[in-house]
Amino acid sequence: MHSIKGIGASAGISIAKAYCLEEPALKIEKTVIENTESELKRFQDAVNHSELELQKIKEHAHQELGADKAEIFEAHLLVLNDPELITPVKEKIKNESMNAEGAIKEIADMFVSMFEQMENDYMKERAADIRDVTKRVIAHLLCVSVPNLSLVSEEVVIVAEDLTPSDTAQLNRQYVKGFTTNIGGRTSHSAIMARSMEIPAVVGAKVVTQEIENGALIIVDGIDGNVIVNPSSEVVKEYEKKKAQFEEQKAEWAKLVNESTISADGYHVELAANIGTPDDVRGVLENGGEGVGLYRTEFLYMGRNQLPTEEEQFEAYRTVLERMEGKPVVVRTLDIGGDKELPYLDLPKEMNPFLGFRALRLCLEMQDMFRTQLRALLRASMYGNLKIMFPMVATLDEFRQAKTILLEEKEKLKSAGSTISDDIEIGIMVEIPSTAVTADLFAKEVDFFSIGTNDLIQYTMAADRMNERVSYLYQPYSPAILRLVKMVIDAAHNEGKWVGMCGEMAGDEVAIPILLGLGLDEFSMSATTILQARSQISKLSRVEVSNVIEQILNMKSAQEVEELIKRKFLT
Amino acid sequence: MHSIKGIGASAGISIAKAYCLEEPALKIEKTVIENTESELKRFQDAVNHSELELQKIKEHAHQELGADKAEIFEAHLLVLNDPELITPVKEKIKNESMNAEGAIKEIADMFVSMFEQMENDYMKERAADIRDVTKRVIAHLLCVSVPNLSLVSEEVVIVAEDLTPSDTAQLNRQYVKGFTTNIGGRTSHSAIMARSMEIPAVVGAKVVTQEIENGALIIVDGIDGNVIVNPSSEVVKEYEKKKAQFEEQKAEWAKLVNESTISADGYHVELAANIGTPDDVRGVLENGGEGVGLYRTEFLYMGRNQLPTEEEQFEAYRTVLERMEGKPVVVRTLDIGGDKELPYLDLPKEMNPFLGFRALRLCLEMQDMFRTQLRALLRASMYGNLKIMFPMVATLDEFRQAKTILLEEKEKLKSAGSTISDDIEIGIMVEIPSTAVTADLFAKEVDFFSIGTNDLIQYTMAADRMNERVSYLYQPYSPAILRLVKMVIDAAHNEGKWVGMCGEMAGDEVAIPILLGLGLDEFSMSATTILQARSQISKLSRVEVSNVIEQILNMKSAQEVEELIKRKFLT
Repeated sequence: MHSIKGIGASAGISIAKAYCLEEPALKIEKTVIENTESELKRFQDAVNHSELELQKIKEHAHQELGADKAEIFEAHLLVLNDPELITPVKEKIKNESMNAEGAIKEIADMFVSMFEQMENDYMKERAADIRDVTKRVIAHLLCVSVPNLSLVSEEVVIVAEDLTPSDTAQLNRQYVKGFTTNIGGRTSHSAIMARSMEIPAVVGAKVVTQEIENGALIIVDGIDGNVIVNPSSEVVKEYEKKKAQFEEQKAEWAKLVNESTISADGYHVELAANIGTPDDVRGVLENGGEGVGLYRTEFLYMGRNQLPTEEEQFEAYRTVLERMEGKPVVVRTLDIGGDKELPYLDLPKEMNPFLGFRALRLCLEMQDMFRTQLRALLRASMYGNLKIMFPMVATLDEFRQAKTILLEEKEKLKSAGSTISDDIEIGIMVEIPSTAVTADLFAKEVDFFSIGTNDLIQYTMAADRMNERVSYLYQPYSPAILRLVKMVIDAAHNEGKWVGMCGEMAGDEVAIPILLGLGLDEFSMSATTILQARSQISKLSRVEVSNVIEQILNMKSAQEVEELIKRKFLT
Repeated sequence: MHSIKGIGASAGISIAKAYCLEEPALKIEKTVIENTESELKRFQDAVNHSELELQKIKEHAHQELGADKAEIFEAHLLVLNDPELITPVKEKIKNESMNAEGAIKEIADMFVSMFEQMENDYMKERAADIRDVTKRVIAHLLCVSVPNLSLVSEEVVIVAEDLTPSDTAQLNRQYVKGFTTNIGGRTSHSAIMARSMEIPAVVGAKVVTQEIENGALIIVDGIDGNVIVNPSSEVVKEYEKKKAQFEEQKAEWAKLVNESTISADGYHVELAANIGTPDDVRGVLENGGEGVGLYRTEFLYMGRNQLPTEEEQFEAYRTVLERMEGKPVVVRTLDIGGDKELPYLDLPKEMNPFLGFRALRLCLEMQDMFRTQLRALLRASMYGNLKIMFPMVATLDEFRQAKTILLEEKEKLKSAGSTISDDIEIGIMVEIPSTAVTADLFAKEVDFFSIGTNDLIQYTMAADRMNERVSYLYQPYSPAILRLVKMVIDAAHNEGKWVGMCGEMAGDEVAIPILLGLGLDEFSMSATTILQARSQISKLSRVEVSNVIEQILNMKSAQEVEELIKRKFLT
């Protein structure tokens, strides 16, 4: 028996036999071919087969994991159809008489090493995407079958170098009880997938493929990030107990699904979920979400070749509003630019995209696109409780412009005979420091705020949250951040407005007591975190936390804040 | 007579004959050459001649304009020696038997179009540098002489498409009374040069080369951004009067050179200058600077192939301290990274360099480099009134780390027998929102603050100040910015510390009344702005401004603030 340390990527315990996922050996030799025409056809066939396969995996992922996660395969299909990748391969075959596998390997390697050199998680993920897609095409060229995890038919824990998005999408929840990988971190695709599938996972465990034999009994402890190989029966018993406790806790949480969220001293707050597509609503309701605090509309615009029509958008918004049955739905208008590109808009490259022409800035200029989205939203407003929220607002003037455009479209639709709700609240994301600092001025004009902590933290600390070299500055518990959050909440309450939060911080167990103490009204998080948060809040006394807020805001570091909260309010 | 509208890039009026600067016609044909060896030699000769010429221009610029401006030619010399430019040219000659002028044109065009596509002033300037250097090399290859502006021997106003840095550096101040160009903006090289040479200039006037004939009488009104062609004698008289008034005003300002800076109601503030090199001290003293508020030490590290030694740095710091004769000198420790690269450090490319691994963040990691600079500063401390300032501080912890390193080096030097001043103040730049928001916590530990508005504004508004598409958000008078400035000043004063400002805002005539009203202690600006600012402050009542501060901080836009200040305090 021995134990391997890794990163707990998805909480829970699984005890099962190891299923070692072997990478198919793809031996690629570069050769000179004689008939370039037939080689081109062979290449195109492999691409077509890969496309069919990806379509199937995407559908499987859609059913098992939800539309949000299936988007990854949209990305793969785009890679597969990307002329920047495919054309040079064909040219290599044609002009250099190179065999297809040699050609695609060479071109793909170039892109992969280019993207990997970038100091940026997003770009690194793109490298992974290209590697994954290329592997599939090459396997088809070599007539080697890519392992099909959906064929697993007994309870196992998967052990692998890494799990690609295609791998995880094929996992059968009935039999796959957990997984562990050599590489990856808490934000890698595989980790996100594991959490969304609610199977325990330990990633970044470096040596699991070397040290674990196929069929060995292993324990994956996703709570503490440990993998135990060939455990003694005592250890198995110990972990069975730990597992039972965890399940018990989950069952405890599950009881809260139809409860409202009330602190130990009787204050009510609202727990909502962040969603990306209409299909995500199911998860929100299953997890007891009291609303949608952030509907990211970008997914409607991504993985396609042109803007979505007003009708397509209307359908999506209406579906979400209907499925939420009158519960509040905060829709954020298009937030693209920055790290989120839409190839078909052909936006200019920027030196600092996070400080660039994005979100509302772009919508105020590309008004046709913006007005289309607003019309779709307005028309959907009769189907539920719609609230519209503008992202990346830095000045009051920007908010006023956006609101004017919205009201213009509303008037036009009404004149044309449409029925539009008159109760649509109009709010803004508070994610730029200038807006937090002047929240009192905004509070007189908006209906609500939602604090977007991911961006607010990165601007306030002047540190790109995707840049590993400065990631130590991404400090949600920094007194500077907490002071800004307090400013926003106080400003809103002075004007009788409500404040939500839709950054990752809203679902963070250290932040939750502080936010409760500061008087946050709505917490919007991933659906799977809601019940845990509800349970946590039900045991917290808001008054008790309020009593230490002054002290917290005057602490010298995020570290001190975290220690105090852990000592006083987390056990 | 007619008038052409442009951008006033340097204040003042000049009335003189037009000297139309014609670009030499460089006809470049691509040909196949026979002897690649002799062609390579011809190319190398042209590069060598260009290098000699650039060295001479650099020296001329150094004398006429100061070391800071001569840095441009360091950049040119680096371009000329850049293997990324030169090697592919040589390869083209060798491998493709292309003639040298064809080869350099082709390679240079590629780089120029690459840099020009970038949405970024800094990169666009690099394109201009490459174009300028290439033109010089091609002229040598074609045996065409590049126009030599230093030969002008009567009073003229230069009329040109654009003035390259090499052109402006050759201007003879005795005869060249002003200039006007078709292209350029307030921040282009030519505009900066004009201000530093104090000759009137109107840039971006679009049609001056088409509409002005050589020898025509023209008036360049750099105050209002007008060029008048063939003015009537009445108009000449009118402008002579305007010119006299301007000169009178300048003479009035000049009287203030040895005065201290005191508001109309008797409050004293300090006017200091921003400098880049020891040679800039002359300009500070000539313009009545009461100190150096920001010594940018980056220039010591730029335009070279390796880090400067401790000795080189010591000499530079000592020289500045000695020349300032006991007046305060605030030295900012190395602020590189972001848009300021040092090729020899080989820093990784970043997705958002402004939010990246730069300045103190980098120094805390590359401690050898940082300690060398600190030792040089400490050793120089006995030669004047040194204050050390750390840039890009986001957390108290970073400041404490930097201070600890400084004190360690001080102890080591002392043990080794060096004499180090015990009165060195240690302060920080406040340029990150988190630091402004928690200035009260910092104020207990630092000796002073200097507010770096250029960065503070861009982070607070989340808008890259070099990105034209979001430049409308660069709003120094935004109530959000002014509130942060107030927080910093109040926090410092509560702890008995002083606050300076070293961003462009400190020398801005609309900002000056507000900053005076907020209680700013030190204003650091370009040396040539000091006397004007002193004159402005001497006429302002601080109490009167203080009375409207509350109103200003609650205004809804930067626009409203600007209008109020202009109405009440600028005439």
